[in-house]
Amino acid sequence: MITLVIYDITDDTVRNRVAKACKQFGLSRIQKSAFLGDLPSAKRKELISRLRRILGNSKGNIQIFVLCRADFALREVIGDVEFEEDEEIILV
Amino acid sequence: MITLVIYDITDDTVRNRVAKACKQFGLSRIQKSAFLGDLPSAKRKELISRLRRILGNSKGNIQIFVLCRADFALREVIGDVEFEEDEEIILV
Repeated sequence: MITLVIYDITDDTVRNRVAKACKQFGLSRIQKSAFLGDLPSAKRKELISRLRRILGNSKGNIQIFVLCRADFALREVIGDVEFEEDEEIILV
Repeated sequence: MITLVIYDITDDTVRNRVAKACKQFGLSRIQKSAFLGDLPSAKRKELISRLRRILGNSKGNIQIFVLCRADFALREVIGDVEFEEDEEIILV
């Protein structure tokens, strides 16, 4: 199943830790605050626990969506992605 | 089908126009740069055309995902949403 993680976090340290966790789980950055990738259910749950621990009591919001192949095939992408801060942004 | 729109747009005017279009189509804001809602397929396609016109040649990236009910039921939300700039943010 495809996992999509989007987040809205002001604190740089927390936000960078969230991005790092997503990368460690093999997700690819598709926007500044969005990661996407194929994860088995158990791994997705592990990632969710990790993200919950990282956010802790800090301000912010993280949302995790799951997409089956049929849903993912309907994805639409408009415009290009800008590379920022030497961070790799990939349109998978 | 549930439609999720996420965007990464630097220009304030373009970004606000994207948000306004999402609202006009009845989507609810779930993060600063993410809208979610139930749209019939024809309306979703109309929204995509509108967003494509709004972005035009401006820098930025908009991604539209479709989620069936089964996928949407697996959504996880971590943390709270902060209200900013008098804009309504709703966790639907």
